[in-house]
Amino acid sequence: MKKYIITIGREFGSGGSEITKKLAEKLGIKYYDKDLITMAAQKRGIEEDVVAGAEERMAKPWDFNSVGLPIFQDRLYAIQSEIIRELAAKDESCIFLGRCADYVLKNEPNVLNVYISASEDFRIQRTKQLHDLSTDDATDMVRRTDRTRRAYYQYYTGRKWGRRDTRDLVLNSGKLGIDTCVDILYTMATDYAGQ
Amino acid sequence: MKKYIITIGREFGSGGSEITKKLAEKLGIKYYDKDLITMAAQKRGIEEDVVAGAEERMAKPWDFNSVGLPIFQDRLYAIQSEIIRELAAKDESCIFLGRCADYVLKNEPNVLNVYISASEDFRIQRTKQLHDLSTDDATDMVRRTDRTRRAYYQYYTGRKWGRRDTRDLVLNSGKLGIDTCVDILYTMATDYAGQ
Repeated sequence: MKKYIITIGREFGSGGSEITKKLAEKLGIKYYDKDLITMAAQKRGIEEDVVAGAEERMAKPWDFNSVGLPIFQDRLYAIQSEIIRELAAKDESCIFLGRCADYVLKNEPNVLNVYISASEDFRIQRTKQLHDLSTDDATDMVRRTDRTRRAYYQYYTGRKWGRRDTRDLVLNSGKLGIDTCVDILYTMATDYAGQ
Repeated sequence: MKKYIITIGREFGSGGSEITKKLAEKLGIKYYDKDLITMAAQKRGIEEDVVAGAEERMAKPWDFNSVGLPIFQDRLYAIQSEIIRELAAKDESCIFLGRCADYVLKNEPNVLNVYISASEDFRIQRTKQLHDLSTDDATDMVRRTDRTRRAYYQYYTGRKWGRRDTRDLVLNSGKLGIDTCVDILYTMATDYAGQ
């Protein structure tokens, strides 16, 4: 079995998070999502500042960069990328959800880049149900989160979000269904690992 | 088992043709490629002209439309679309390779639209080997064929070729390999049919 890394990018409401969890379980490997990576980076950032006695280096919360992300995000992004590379270097296969992992690991071998999309209508319906929202609120949430993710991805990578030519597999979860997406990705990973 | 139709669009040299053949065999269903559909349309066009005594209706070979395709192509396209819809209406699952089948069948249920791409470098290497060409000739062949297919697709559908949001599954065959692509599509089709 060859070691491999899967990165998953996704539109909000497409089920990317559910697909990632189910896939990791089926493959018996670890996954690292946005929250986990961000938390680890925040912890390391604070520790480094404490060690260096450099709290004053930290940006003020009201400092923002050119796309409206807080300045401290830039430092957080650098630490996150460092953490992603460390996790990817371990002697085991794993999955990264979000955080531009496809870009961070662009020079690593055996990385399979996946993107999950779905029609806006499907994503709004799914968000409504999952978060018990009105159609209007779900629509706002989907559009706002996509805008934020797009800005984040493009700011840090200089690439267009969801661009086909940087992905190895793109799925329409609205059409195929969550479980079929899991099965397709499972086939991809096991075939690839067995090559 | 639910009936389904798979349409496959592909960049030249990506292995789309080989993937289609192997997939059809593995699924035990028929596939219809460009040559077969074009031949059927030509035959039907000639028969219709003979029946109508309307050979004079046929465009001269030197008549070209706005994107440089011969005018008789427009009529051929209409007949081809008719043939694709007839084949799709049969009581059995099948695969269409090329000929804008995703667009022709856009209002049909249970159609899974697939697109196969690969890096230009991979496609040139593959074309070199398959057709025993020099690198220069293979490069020309890949670029010329892609230009023609893009013009054809965009002229008849008004859509951008390979646009992600009209496809349900997009594969990078250069990265994943031909056989893994076949296995992924097999998983997609059998899961979908069993839903």
